[in-house]
Amino acid sequence: MHSPPALDSLEAALERAVSRFDDGSPVSEQIRYHFGFGTGERRGKRLRSRLVLEVAAEEGAPADEVLDAACAVEILHEFSLVHDDIEDGDRLRRGRETTWSRFGLAHGINAGDALCAVAYLALLDGGAARPAETTLRMTRVLHEAHLAMCAGQGRDIAFETEARVSMDDYMAMIGGKTAALFGVACELGALAAGAEPERARAYDRLGRAYGIAFQIEDDVLGTWGDSATTGKPCGADLAKRKWIFPVVWALAGPPSAERETVAAAYAGGRVLDPATVAAASAALDRLGARQAALHAARAALDQAEAVAAARGIDRSGRVRAFFARAVRRIA
Amino acid sequence: MHSPPALDSLEAALERAVSRFDDGSPVSEQIRYHFGFGTGERRGKRLRSRLVLEVAAEEGAPADEVLDAACAVEILHEFSLVHDDIEDGDRLRRGRETTWSRFGLAHGINAGDALCAVAYLALLDGGAARPAETTLRMTRVLHEAHLAMCAGQGRDIAFETEARVSMDDYMAMIGGKTAALFGVACELGALAAGAEPERARAYDRLGRAYGIAFQIEDDVLGTWGDSATTGKPCGADLAKRKWIFPVVWALAGPPSAERETVAAAYAGGRVLDPATVAAASAALDRLGARQAALHAARAALDQAEAVAAARGIDRSGRVRAFFARAVRRIA
Repeated sequence: MHSPPALDSLEAALERAVSRFDDGSPVSEQIRYHFGFGTGERRGKRLRSRLVLEVAAEEGAPADEVLDAACAVEILHEFSLVHDDIEDGDRLRRGRETTWSRFGLAHGINAGDALCAVAYLALLDGGAARPAETTLRMTRVLHEAHLAMCAGQGRDIAFETEARVSMDDYMAMIGGKTAALFGVACELGALAAGAEPERARAYDRLGRAYGIAFQIEDDVLGTWGDSATTGKPCGADLAKRKWIFPVVWALAGPPSAERETVAAAYAGGRVLDPATVAAASAALDRLGARQAALHAARAALDQAEAVAAARGIDRSGRVRAFFARAVRRIA
Repeated sequence: MHSPPALDSLEAALERAVSRFDDGSPVSEQIRYHFGFGTGERRGKRLRSRLVLEVAAEEGAPADEVLDAACAVEILHEFSLVHDDIEDGDRLRRGRETTWSRFGLAHGINAGDALCAVAYLALLDGGAARPAETTLRMTRVLHEAHLAMCAGQGRDIAFETEARVSMDDYMAMIGGKTAALFGVACELGALAAGAEPERARAYDRLGRAYGIAFQIEDDVLGTWGDSATTGKPCGADLAKRKWIFPVVWALAGPPSAERETVAAAYAGGRVLDPATVAAASAALDRLGARQAALHAARAALDQAEAVAAARGIDRSGRVRAFFARAVRRIA
């Protein structure tokens, strides 16, 4: 299904979209740097844009007719990464210096803002081939997802200074921060393929369920995964006292020595030392937090399948297969 | 022309637009804080949104039919201010703590990103009453202006480490950073009133010329204006070694003792002490840089009038009168 030519077309379309204003201003250089075009360096996984292509294919549209929507979703994701890296103080991504670290804080914020505009312009450029009503709807749902992402990210930032985060708050956070963009990726794929708004809405719900599963699995991989596979240091989320699913779940459970180990680690200062990370990780494992997370991810996948069955979407199972192959890595 | 009811309607519409996702997440509180709603504190001047209303009125549309476009422009402006304050390290705006200073860097970036989405959603919400083609065009030109603003802002940030800035570079910078939004404000007012795209494009050119005049005058006011009127400390731009029109103009001139005073001030460290600011300001005055700036602003106003006459827009002179009354303060 993922023939290299389709992915190459996507990559070429992304580069065209991002280079649209190669006007010699600093920001045009910076956003090209962020994507790493021309360097031959490691690409992102492009999961979200590939999800657009998969849904569109399922709904009968060839990839070359929906590349604009795929690019818009991927560029909006990269915009959020440029700003997330500043918000998290991260200096490395995909083995390269992050954009703000390379060009400074002010340029980093501004380059992200430019990418945001570039994302929507990619969609509006491609919209010439569609009814105006459709492009308008696509633009609106992408802006709504963008706002939901910010609401989720705001919750995540606020968590940093919280003594305790409830499971409801965690789910609201990942529902915005992660799932909203997975949802809109599916919705845009359907709209671009000419699906009715209601049907596309159902794809949004499907994508959100997959997004929830993805994020919970990502939390597990960040704690127990192989750092060579994930590309990030094992336990990095714990070290930064991030409120990931296993921790939220463990601290909501009944008192125990293991729970106390995790609570004590999170009650301390901002960054945990490696020994504390290892102790917390082992305690979470003994509590069953890893299994609980995998169970929750599995439940989200089941929900996705239930949505698909109830709404008569993803009939060929193409989206499910894509998710199983490219996204679902552990459950 | 500016009856208080019209401005009150604008303010109410802005508050509605900004409160659209009052979902209890931190970001909804933060963007309300940025606008100061409910505090009775000083509003912004709302120049850009009032420009939308004026052009729409000139083209025959009442204010209540174009409030969505006015809100979109104003909110996009406020989004840029939230990020500019971080990029410039400014902790005060309109007598209150800036959003990032109040909530922290990460929340500040994220709240700005949310405002960006809110701006476009305001426009898309209002678009239901217009042909889809028109709303789509309005959305596109606003995104293009947004990208131009980032390109201009990127140049301005890059200027901070430049030893010399040419007049061409300065004009390219303010053409993006300031004039693009004035231009699109006029274009949106015309499109919202049902003007043909070509006619609306002419309004964009008119607004850009006014924007250039506004920025150059702002540079003069920041150096020689009354800080009680301008709301910012006199000489603040010089103190921060900003490449304002008078400095760019002076350093492009022939060698002289005065030019050397300015050059020496700008060749030093990042922040100038008050004595150096006073000496640079006096030297600029003796060189005639203030008059040169006023002359350049006047030339931009003349250009605006020439555009209006050549294209048959602003026939009643309403936009010119608005600009003379509310924006043009010194030329």
